[in-house]
Amino acid sequence: MTKRSRPLILVCNDDGIDARGIRALATAVSSLGDVCVVAPLEEQSAVGHAITMRTPVRIRRWPFQLSDEGESDVEAYAITGTPADCIKIAIDKILDDPPDLVVSGINHGANTAVNVLYSGTVSAATEASVLGIDAIAFSLCDYGSHLQFDVAASVAQRICQRVLADGLAPGTLLNVNVPAVSLADLRGALVTRQARSRWEEEFLERHDPFDEKYYWLSGRFVDMDQGPNTDLKAINNGYVSITPIDHDLTAHRLIDGLSEVNWLDS
Amino acid sequence: MTKRSRPLILVCNDDGIDARGIRALATAVSSLGDVCVVAPLEEQSAVGHAITMRTPVRIRRWPFQLSDEGESDVEAYAITGTPADCIKIAIDKILDDPPDLVVSGINHGANTAVNVLYSGTVSAATEASVLGIDAIAFSLCDYGSHLQFDVAASVAQRICQRVLADGLAPGTLLNVNVPAVSLADLRGALVTRQARSRWEEEFLERHDPFDEKYYWLSGRFVDMDQGPNTDLKAINNGYVSITPIDHDLTAHRLIDGLSEVNWLDS
Repeated sequence: MTKRSRPLILVCNDDGIDARGIRALATAVSSLGDVCVVAPLEEQSAVGHAITMRTPVRIRRWPFQLSDEGESDVEAYAITGTPADCIKIAIDKILDDPPDLVVSGINHGANTAVNVLYSGTVSAATEASVLGIDAIAFSLCDYGSHLQFDVAASVAQRICQRVLADGLAPGTLLNVNVPAVSLADLRGALVTRQARSRWEEEFLERHDPFDEKYYWLSGRFVDMDQGPNTDLKAINNGYVSITPIDHDLTAHRLIDGLSEVNWLDS
Repeated sequence: MTKRSRPLILVCNDDGIDARGIRALATAVSSLGDVCVVAPLEEQSAVGHAITMRTPVRIRRWPFQLSDEGESDVEAYAITGTPADCIKIAIDKILDDPPDLVVSGINHGANTAVNVLYSGTVSAATEASVLGIDAIAFSLCDYGSHLQFDVAASVAQRICQRVLADGLAPGTLLNVNVPAVSLADLRGALVTRQARSRWEEEFLERHDPFDEKYYWLSGRFVDMDQGPNTDLKAINNGYVSITPIDHDLTAHRLIDGLSEVNWLDS
């Protein structure tokens, strides 16, 4: 891409380049800057921060129309890899300059609480943050084929505008979840923390035609957090949840205490 | 498995169940408790915290001999999935009781600095931590086919003994990296933080027989951290690096400041 006066915004996701959510997001941010879409060719949900090392990756120029602008195309590339791959290869091979902002989503489904660990949507933003670029992941807390992205897209546009103006703290990204409510019912936005939670797995057991067992991951999500200010509470109460996320995972508060231990004495 | 008086230790990795490192680790901890190995059938390096949702997972009983005990077999299962899958399915389908400790590794290669994000070895320990189980990831900072695991195995045994006795803070795990030095040259253990770092990608461009381009992920690791107490410094100076890791990724320190922003005003 050539030198520009407007911000350059890189758009990614984990649902795949033909998903409805990424079209809504690219459209929402197209008024704020020049948009380039680099997203997985195929759905990559729950890949976490996987990167592709043992197989090569391909880049395909892809037709990509904005939602509501008739013939308006944006530059777009489908990648045979993960969301983290998309960010890496966009910056090394596709874009002439680093983007001013990376946005990921709009995910079809929530990325709250412990699910942030598994989320390919968030990992694209995390990868950008590692590379020193402001980044935001957006998710719509609803499922099914009839998702309405208009409210989430409007929220994304406003939050991106704010971040383009103010920037983010180095080493951090924002994880934004939008409740599935109408604009009239949206109560506002809260800055939150991830709720303490887990999945209680119940793998479903099946038998193949050769009578060998196989298992489908299944389970029940458990919110274990009665404290204030969680992402789950915000969503349940009709607020947009904005969680600042660190890519440094170090539990800094524990370093002094653990340093007192004689680790190698037995 | 049946009721036991000794601790139950679940052993996983990301290099695959037949890797030399997991045999060294299972052997090292076998003196501390009852061992069950549940590990990926195939190598799963750089899968991060991926979980398998769109394909089923299979469990195969696997022959697994400890390194130095002749005929001594331990209970072992190979899983057609990721390290995080292994932990989930071990706890739901294989073990009668939750393990007292989960250990992952010994990884063939370092998992320091930003690489923690991409590491399947660490993600197995992270998954255990989410499920409320003390967990430690071990990596040997060396590469190639002639790795010597004896020092790392001895270090792992001592650290596991300590953690079985004292426990870990809830919501945290330990990420342990062992330098490739002899026991005589090992200078001790330091509790560290992840070094600030990144990969500067340089995807290698190739052409297939149909003259279409494809790319291999490649690049140069950059340590951007001149500060004290990093995992990279510890390793480079001949110390074992022990980094406490949080599975809550929230940047708690930013919540108050970000709460002052009017996010939805445009």
